[in-house]
Amino acid sequence: MSDPRLQALQQAVPDLRLKTEPADLEHYGRDWTRRWTPAPLAIALPASVEEVQAVVRWANQHRVAIVPSGGRTGLSGGAVAADGELVLSLERMNKVLDFNAVDRTLTVQPGIALEAVHNAARDHGLVYPVDFAARGSCSIGGSIATNAGGIRVIRYGNTREWVAGLKLVTGSGELLTLNRGLIKNSSGYDLRHLVIGSEGTLGVVVEATLRLTDPPPPSNVMLLALPSFDVLMKVFAAFRERLQLEAFEFFTDRALHHVLAHGAQKPFEETHPYYVVTEFAAGDEIQEAAAMAAFEACMENGWVSDGVISQSDAQAAQLWRLREGITESLARYKPYKNDVSVRISAMPAFLEETQALLGQAYPQFDVVWFGHIGDGNLHINVLQPEGTGDAEFVEQCGHVTELLGQTLKRHGGSISAEHGIGLVKKPYLDSTRSDEEVAIMRGIKRVLDPNGLMNPGKLFDS
Amino acid sequence: MSDPRLQALQQAVPDLRLKTEPADLEHYGRDWTRRWTPAPLAIALPASVEEVQAVVRWANQHRVAIVPSGGRTGLSGGAVAADGELVLSLERMNKVLDFNAVDRTLTVQPGIALEAVHNAARDHGLVYPVDFAARGSCSIGGSIATNAGGIRVIRYGNTREWVAGLKLVTGSGELLTLNRGLIKNSSGYDLRHLVIGSEGTLGVVVEATLRLTDPPPPSNVMLLALPSFDVLMKVFAAFRERLQLEAFEFFTDRALHHVLAHGAQKPFEETHPYYVVTEFAAGDEIQEAAAMAAFEACMENGWVSDGVISQSDAQAAQLWRLREGITESLARYKPYKNDVSVRISAMPAFLEETQALLGQAYPQFDVVWFGHIGDGNLHINVLQPEGTGDAEFVEQCGHVTELLGQTLKRHGGSISAEHGIGLVKKPYLDSTRSDEEVAIMRGIKRVLDPNGLMNPGKLFDS
Repeated sequence: MSDPRLQALQQAVPDLRLKTEPADLEHYGRDWTRRWTPAPLAIALPASVEEVQAVVRWANQHRVAIVPSGGRTGLSGGAVAADGELVLSLERMNKVLDFNAVDRTLTVQPGIALEAVHNAARDHGLVYPVDFAARGSCSIGGSIATNAGGIRVIRYGNTREWVAGLKLVTGSGELLTLNRGLIKNSSGYDLRHLVIGSEGTLGVVVEATLRLTDPPPPSNVMLLALPSFDVLMKVFAAFRERLQLEAFEFFTDRALHHVLAHGAQKPFEETHPYYVVTEFAAGDEIQEAAAMAAFEACMENGWVSDGVISQSDAQAAQLWRLREGITESLARYKPYKNDVSVRISAMPAFLEETQALLGQAYPQFDVVWFGHIGDGNLHINVLQPEGTGDAEFVEQCGHVTELLGQTLKRHGGSISAEHGIGLVKKPYLDSTRSDEEVAIMRGIKRVLDPNGLMNPGKLFDS
Repeated sequence: MSDPRLQALQQAVPDLRLKTEPADLEHYGRDWTRRWTPAPLAIALPASVEEVQAVVRWANQHRVAIVPSGGRTGLSGGAVAADGELVLSLERMNKVLDFNAVDRTLTVQPGIALEAVHNAARDHGLVYPVDFAARGSCSIGGSIATNAGGIRVIRYGNTREWVAGLKLVTGSGELLTLNRGLIKNSSGYDLRHLVIGSEGTLGVVVEATLRLTDPPPPSNVMLLALPSFDVLMKVFAAFRERLQLEAFEFFTDRALHHVLAHGAQKPFEETHPYYVVTEFAAGDEIQEAAAMAAFEACMENGWVSDGVISQSDAQAAQLWRLREGITESLARYKPYKNDVSVRISAMPAFLEETQALLGQAYPQFDVVWFGHIGDGNLHINVLQPEGTGDAEFVEQCGHVTELLGQTLKRHGGSISAEHGIGLVKKPYLDSTRSDEEVAIMRGIKRVLDPNGLMNPGKLFDS
């Protein structure tokens, strides 16, 4: 702790836990992207809102940049600290502060894991319905910072829909208490929504009041095998018009290949080019008949070649694993991740163009497609071939992302559906947001963070 | 049209329709508040986005303030032009531009009436579920500017939840295309949500893409008579735990008195101090049995003294009229309107304190209570007595609003649940938003409206 700035910090906040060991700098300085070399100044682990405010005030005095840090499961480099920043880890602020049965809200500290929120809600007979595969390690603060989506968006919407109140320490160290759990509040600009999805660039979320809801009705999970890509949206329409969908997820044979290699169980004897996992309400005979009708309509039209429906919770989990295990199964190939979205109606044309583009651009690469088709959200993972260096691989992929960005622009899509922009997508933000919008975002950042210290260089350059 | 600024405007936008007749200035210069004397410079009625942009550019050149104007049904003075502003009426931009069956969206111009949106959705077998009594005259743009709530919030949320995309002409005349109908889009600050509820202070909404949904299941309407105020939240809990509520609305005997005097039909032989209108899904026998169980539980506990359930659509409409007719029935008394909200769990204590406060403050006044209890939203209308002058009445009411603001502050509530702040609630904004929040709002306004020309003086003083 020889840095005089850190000595000043420790003096200003005597109880603040600070870490400066090389292993800690390495651990806290990176997220799941693994593309940047961590190089933070130090790690601060505050235990209270007051400590967070004191750290931010210190940062303003000494002009030290701050990287707010949750579970660091992000895929866009939003939590990377590679430039002498102070990592402000919220991992010690991980408690449930309050449950309110009448309001049906859970108030939590930002460092709590998503799964712990799920468990706390369940203890009270309710659910927090935002869900995705990183649930065990991601923090609720991080999910708010990226407006995380996941596998239930088709039914419940994004994180944004479930945040009834926020406390934010701004870049100036002021504590804002936003919306305070109210259902109706038309008293000026909704700064809560401004903060959600701002990737730590406006301040540090230090508390969140989350809405809970009733558990969903009993459901069934179905795995469908599709003969071709162009029937995908037809299958979706057939299921959506007949059923209350809880999820509708797509993946390719290449994705399945990697999950099976990672230990999952093969669902069909034969191999098919495309698959869908869908979950839908199936509490009574009417709903079950509707599910069969959807399936049969697809079979008759030749849109589906095979299918299996879960007969137990264990089998439902097995089918889900085929989709949810994809990201983990690909991790060792250091995939270049695209996370794009278009309107559902634009999906067929967008898929066709993108398929052609990628076939041309990546003939030599293993490209794995999957995604939340029911939300218009597609993940395209390009696997790094052995023998291709990191820098070379990223450069090649970056070039294709440029082309993908042009396609997105034509279809009014987004270069980041749910991962955020961070460092990874920053060069391509102009595919989705106009120069005027980015200038306005910069201006807004200056209002909440006048010295530009909150996660600088993420989302856009100041 | 002797004003040289208007001549310059007409020259710059030759096809722009302009009105300067005194009757037009009077008509377009006021909203439903009727407290301010209209005094606009002129009325511009653009027919296209380009014309709106041209008007805003002219306003910047000549430093003329602009009041964006929809149906002017607002209750907080947000659309008042009393200080030489140009009223920018969107009434000619009132078309449906697109319906997309796959995305389930309706794209409309801002001047279209809410009811016309309802009808357009219904033509496609879907619904736009935001609804309130001014549906025939309010514009969708105005409902977005105030994040309007209404009678279905308990089931469907506020306007905010149903806006998939917006086009905004900023205070600088730039056209922003925000979110473009996407379900998932984590590409930086969600400026769409910043605009919703900003009361025309950041720019002019020139297009909106609205989400539609399936029609609700068949429902029943029930009118309940309550013996006292303190059972209200118990009745709410009894109904909420058993039924899928579509609405849960409360009003007092004084409110009923005015609606009956206005021509509605008396629902019960006897008089009761408090009433509830509730609507709930009732498509099958299970739901109907649940409704009876809720009613009987309330009767057994003495929380409800009488009740009637609709047997037909006509009767349902009759019961609804008792609640929806209140505002109209009070109009001739020029009521001073409070539109406050707290969390539902804070409602009992808040109601008790507020009742005591108003009993003390307004012993001489007719005070009419009603509201959306299921959303924590209460409307308190104070009727202007004959013989009390406008200014004196507003001053007396303003003093009580100060006290009400203090109560709200203690309970973490909002001085405006759904009407907006406008001019009417501006003096009391500090009951709901901190000085830091207001400073941030001012800073954000400067980013989107550098010359402070968009609806200046509304919400806050620049």
